[in-house]
Amino acid sequence: MLKKINYGDKEAFAKVLEDRNVSVDPKITMTVLEILQKVKEEKDDALSFYTSKFDGVVIEDILVTQEEMDKAMSLVDDEFISILEDAKRNIELYHKKQLKEGYEIVEADDVYLGQRVLPLQRVGIYVPGGSAAYPSTVLMDVIPAKIANVDEIIMVTPPQKDGSVNPFILASAKVAGVDKIYKVGGAQAIGALAYGTQTIPKVDKVVGPGNVYVAEAKKLVYGQVDIDMIAGPSEILVIADKDANPSFVAADLMSQAEHDTMASSILVTTSEQLVEEVEKELEKQIQELSRTSIMEQSFANYGYVIVASTIEEAIEISNEIAPEHLELMVKNPKDYLPLVRNAGSVFLGYYTCESIGDYFGGTNHVLPTNGTARFYSPLGVDSFMKKSSYLHWSKEALQKEGAKIIRFAKQEGLDAHANAVRVRI
Amino acid sequence: MLKKINYGDKEAFAKVLEDRNVSVDPKITMTVLEILQKVKEEKDDALSFYTSKFDGVVIEDILVTQEEMDKAMSLVDDEFISILEDAKRNIELYHKKQLKEGYEIVEADDVYLGQRVLPLQRVGIYVPGGSAAYPSTVLMDVIPAKIANVDEIIMVTPPQKDGSVNPFILASAKVAGVDKIYKVGGAQAIGALAYGTQTIPKVDKVVGPGNVYVAEAKKLVYGQVDIDMIAGPSEILVIADKDANPSFVAADLMSQAEHDTMASSILVTTSEQLVEEVEKELEKQIQELSRTSIMEQSFANYGYVIVASTIEEAIEISNEIAPEHLELMVKNPKDYLPLVRNAGSVFLGYYTCESIGDYFGGTNHVLPTNGTARFYSPLGVDSFMKKSSYLHWSKEALQKEGAKIIRFAKQEGLDAHANAVRVRI
Repeated sequence: MLKKINYGDKEAFAKVLEDRNVSVDPKITMTVLEILQKVKEEKDDALSFYTSKFDGVVIEDILVTQEEMDKAMSLVDDEFISILEDAKRNIELYHKKQLKEGYEIVEADDVYLGQRVLPLQRVGIYVPGGSAAYPSTVLMDVIPAKIANVDEIIMVTPPQKDGSVNPFILASAKVAGVDKIYKVGGAQAIGALAYGTQTIPKVDKVVGPGNVYVAEAKKLVYGQVDIDMIAGPSEILVIADKDANPSFVAADLMSQAEHDTMASSILVTTSEQLVEEVEKELEKQIQELSRTSIMEQSFANYGYVIVASTIEEAIEISNEIAPEHLELMVKNPKDYLPLVRNAGSVFLGYYTCESIGDYFGGTNHVLPTNGTARFYSPLGVDSFMKKSSYLHWSKEALQKEGAKIIRFAKQEGLDAHANAVRVRI
Repeated sequence: MLKKINYGDKEAFAKVLEDRNVSVDPKITMTVLEILQKVKEEKDDALSFYTSKFDGVVIEDILVTQEEMDKAMSLVDDEFISILEDAKRNIELYHKKQLKEGYEIVEADDVYLGQRVLPLQRVGIYVPGGSAAYPSTVLMDVIPAKIANVDEIIMVTPPQKDGSVNPFILASAKVAGVDKIYKVGGAQAIGALAYGTQTIPKVDKVVGPGNVYVAEAKKLVYGQVDIDMIAGPSEILVIADKDANPSFVAADLMSQAEHDTMASSILVTTSEQLVEEVEKELEKQIQELSRTSIMEQSFANYGYVIVASTIEEAIEISNEIAPEHLELMVKNPKDYLPLVRNAGSVFLGYYTCESIGDYFGGTNHVLPTNGTARFYSPLGVDSFMKKSSYLHWSKEALQKEGAKIIRFAKQEGLDAHANAVRVRI
């Protein structure tokens, strides 16, 4: 089911590295620009208009009430609430270690300088509706913002036809600690978060996945507010040695492929025999699962297998691909971790399947896709904080060093910069 | 010279907050897209073509040689080299504190998880030529990347008509520790860094200021590589109490205004009398400086004064504006620092003029502009590092917790995610 390619065949390998992002249809961009403009100008009226148009429902008050929350909690079984709480505990444990403090340096002559690390004031979380309504993503997006101590966390999510919100989404928002939830989705919700309306306050950052309209809206408001990322299709790269269980390998490749037909699953192994066994397992297991057709298309589009001569070479291949998820299904996996330069999240050993991290292990599942692990990081507490520097110089310090600053400013032809020092000394 | 506005007049104040970014002429976008496409396809040949076209010079080998470096160093006086080295020492001292380490959490049943903090592998620094060739920016861009331990730091800068590079730029690159310098500028240099050519290797991140073509090229390659920011015009907000020296206040407002006619200088003060005195000083000092016309236009466009009733209110105003530079020219400035939520860099007290930070104090001068201090940070060591998470679970741990993960996956309709756990337990 997987296309076999040779690492030595540079042309074939270059194809694997190719950008999987299809460019956005300009018609979608135009539609989104129009929606954003209308939200900017007409605010709440525009939200009502688009909710009625796209979601087919008229909602008087889009703020989710306490009653609605209570009702949602009553619709979700206690077992699932308890699983959400266990997952939350693990995610908190992992993310709390990311909280950073500022620092200060004190020098002679009453000179001091430092950096403060400050939470963003207001953040907006977009949560899709329908079949892509994932409670796990609510936890992954909200918990780091809570730990960062963001003043206010707002969630927006499209209403269902009857005006309600999926109760599992509301329950996960409650467990995660969202402050306010508004029933509005699509590009119009992103516009509301970026510009503010009478009801929805303007935020500093918008995070969360969404359909192509939501993704395009995020791209267009970027700069006006910060955004998490423009997520591409999901991907996994599994490095497996000869002792890896082919059934596990096949299962993990499929767990990625089921996301969508653009998802990519790549096996890199040192064992030719494993390749055959994994193929057999894929044929077998794929028939037993529900999203068979999506998986088949995904494998046909972006499923690859590459045979490497050593684990070190396999990691070299992975570093070039810079996968979102990397599984090291090898003996003594931690020995190889220092060689991994580019990967969003690494799953170590034969028993750490990616789905542990997707839901429960504690690491974040919002990760850089499409080769951007070369320079981007997983979502984390840092994503909801910013830094601000400060500096204090005394008259004495300026008298000692001022001439150097004056020379530097003059060298750059910035006379008034020099003057600001000159008037003081 | 400054337009007086009232904080209570919401409409007038909203004007101050207005986006100062003029939208980019679509013709420029089209030109830049064409340049990027040609560089992607024709690589080095495209660079030669555009260097000849835009810089009016044909260069055989664009890599700056050791001989050229030696010559540049001989053209720069020892005093300036020594000032560069003093500045470097201060910048290093401040930025070294930003170096972060990863962490690991170890739990029962051989479960462990952690975060690694890794340097980017290759970074490209753009340095403008001509009158905007600032040695200080070379230090500010390169030193944090060096501290982050980036494997390779590449600089690109347009050649002068005679094929050489401004010796002060080369000298500051040498002091900062740039690995390689290529004589190519404009949008074509950004394309070369993003896609790679036969001569210039592809990088992970592009930083540095440039003209409108360079800025547009950075925006267009963003996602393919990371970028630092799309910098808007520079800005300063000075909060001054009645004891502030009007001559100092005026000098600092002018040091911002001289950058360009789009720069913004805002004075917020609790003293009506100070406003009058500052105006007098502005009238006087502006005639004694060289960039008078730029400053006059800048003040006319975006120069404001706002009278606040208290220092606390002045800071509230500043928090709404979120200035790139904030000066607190007040008594006991550090007492007020915790109230400052949104500012790129804060200059404390009567003697800490912004130009100390621009050149010499140690804090970075690459700062978020145009209100983006609400969510962006100064350039720093973090800007050249990324994070990668890892997770290890044992069979025992999965046997204990697997059922929860299966339920979670099923709740989200992701059958193959559940299957990856099921096959293991």
